[in-house]
Amino acid sequence: MKHLIGVDLGGTRLRAVRMDTTGHIFQHRSVATAATAGPEEVISQVVSLVEQVIGDVSHADILGIGVGSPGPTDPFAGIVLHALTLQGWVNVPLRALLEDQTGLPVILHNDAHAAALGEWYFGSGQGCQDFVYVTVSTGIGGGIIANGQLLLGRKGMAGEIGHMQIQPDGPVCSCGQTGCWESLASGTALAHFAAQALQKESPSLLHDRATKGSVTAADVFTAATQGDELAQDLLRREGEFLGMGLVNLLHLFSPERITLGGGVAQGMAWLEPHIHRIIAARAMPSYRDVPIHYAQLGDQAGVIGAATLLLASVTR
Amino acid sequence: MKHLIGVDLGGTRLRAVRMDTTGHIFQHRSVATAATAGPEEVISQVVSLVEQVIGDVSHADILGIGVGSPGPTDPFAGIVLHALTLQGWVNVPLRALLEDQTGLPVILHNDAHAAALGEWYFGSGQGCQDFVYVTVSTGIGGGIIANGQLLLGRKGMAGEIGHMQIQPDGPVCSCGQTGCWESLASGTALAHFAAQALQKESPSLLHDRATKGSVTAADVFTAATQGDELAQDLLRREGEFLGMGLVNLLHLFSPERITLGGGVAQGMAWLEPHIHRIIAARAMPSYRDVPIHYAQLGDQAGVIGAATLLLASVTR
Repeated sequence: MKHLIGVDLGGTRLRAVRMDTTGHIFQHRSVATAATAGPEEVISQVVSLVEQVIGDVSHADILGIGVGSPGPTDPFAGIVLHALTLQGWVNVPLRALLEDQTGLPVILHNDAHAAALGEWYFGSGQGCQDFVYVTVSTGIGGGIIANGQLLLGRKGMAGEIGHMQIQPDGPVCSCGQTGCWESLASGTALAHFAAQALQKESPSLLHDRATKGSVTAADVFTAATQGDELAQDLLRREGEFLGMGLVNLLHLFSPERITLGGGVAQGMAWLEPHIHRIIAARAMPSYRDVPIHYAQLGDQAGVIGAATLLLASVTR
Repeated sequence: MKHLIGVDLGGTRLRAVRMDTTGHIFQHRSVATAATAGPEEVISQVVSLVEQVIGDVSHADILGIGVGSPGPTDPFAGIVLHALTLQGWVNVPLRALLEDQTGLPVILHNDAHAAALGEWYFGSGQGCQDFVYVTVSTGIGGGIIANGQLLLGRKGMAGEIGHMQIQPDGPVCSCGQTGCWESLASGTALAHFAAQALQKESPSLLHDRATKGSVTAADVFTAATQGDELAQDLLRREGEFLGMGLVNLLHLFSPERITLGGGVAQGMAWLEPHIHRIIAARAMPSYRDVPIHYAQLGDQAGVIGAATLLLASVTR
């Protein structure tokens, strides 16, 4: 039996797993990322985690190491172009460095592509030829399975679904443009709209939660659950913006299924009615019955997906 | 040597070709479509055209017939769901009917997918693994080549790029929704914006061209060439709207190249500067250098593409 190693290079936590080709996890380890210490230190953390999950398994029984990296990545060259949440990570040849230090083959991809693969192989996307995975948290990312393959595109840069423009005069996005899906429907956008709404002094539980001048997406969900009308209204709008982007993804990719993951998607119970209302109103009839699921692998999607990179055809 | 038959089921003209697997055309025939006569009459026109282009070539040397159909098509079932420009064409099992009447294998797809394949195999998309073809005429349609395959999706319905929403409060689209790319940047949209602008009575050559109360996209290009400022302003806006949709396609598919075809794209000289300005302003830096081409096969793209269906993996 062959073992797969997966590494999720998170800005907050580094995770590593050893699993088999059916997704069964034998070992799981994580550690707080030395995010400000630079690539050398973080890579030595990764090597140490990998050694821990390998334990006494022979290298001959290990297929390799799959790594999911936050932000732009060149999977063909094996280079982390810019790990947005890790200081000093620009143009790091991570594949070569890890192969040197571990003696194992390494495959590198961006973390949203990896999570999409994980959900496709072992989660909510199983059995689909055409599947779209959307992660909604600080930003919006995703991965597309098309014709039974991860959609790569030139330089492996396909699937930047968060930077699909859906409202030209919308808010400024992290990418510098205006009206991207991410600028309207990410967790950051939700928090931003909440802060804006609070400035209008409507009565809301969110005022108490925002004493330090900041309100988070999680605060909005909590307040909505406590019956707060402003929070519920913000989540109606969040669901509508999510729905608008999903309508585009339906028309463009015609998936059999769409899965939402990430922190914001954990509030699916609040968002689902509004998402479905927009899809029923705006998608062409033959696309309206595509199921929208919530991710099955939860916060393991990234690290399981990273290991899954070793099973899929994801480089050229 | 094997011969391929291609049929383009146009609302105005039916076209058929016999060509070889390198795209060399031996025979080409076309006839005015009996668009109002119903499926039976049109199918007998198709059979007659096919017989003409086959001539005395033996059926044993013919790989089959590829057919491009206008509008929603189920390529897997071989059914024309709704040929928008042909009267009475709803749920026509064209593949089975044509196979019965010709004794040859038939593959059916929507005409935009077929044209995309034609440009990919024999036109401006040659050599690409990832390629996007956009046709801009009455509507906006297209086909996506992803990972070296035509993107099919569930029921073969992927690539409805014209119904990507890029401005939620935009004009009403042919699909009934608002702010689709097609409602902002198709030839119909251009003509519509021209008519609106003329109601404001600005001085313009277009007033003379619109004596019958109608102005066409072609009129706008002609007037712009004659120095008309209103027409040039309309084309600036047309180019900008095209650019906005192209930015989304770049981020979603990361193609190596995008090709524009169809009537409106014939005015590329007017549109190109505005398209490139929007891409430079709104696409993320690593996507800005993707070349935007004009279709090489011109009005033959559809019928050559239909024959090309026989060479590609386009059904399941």
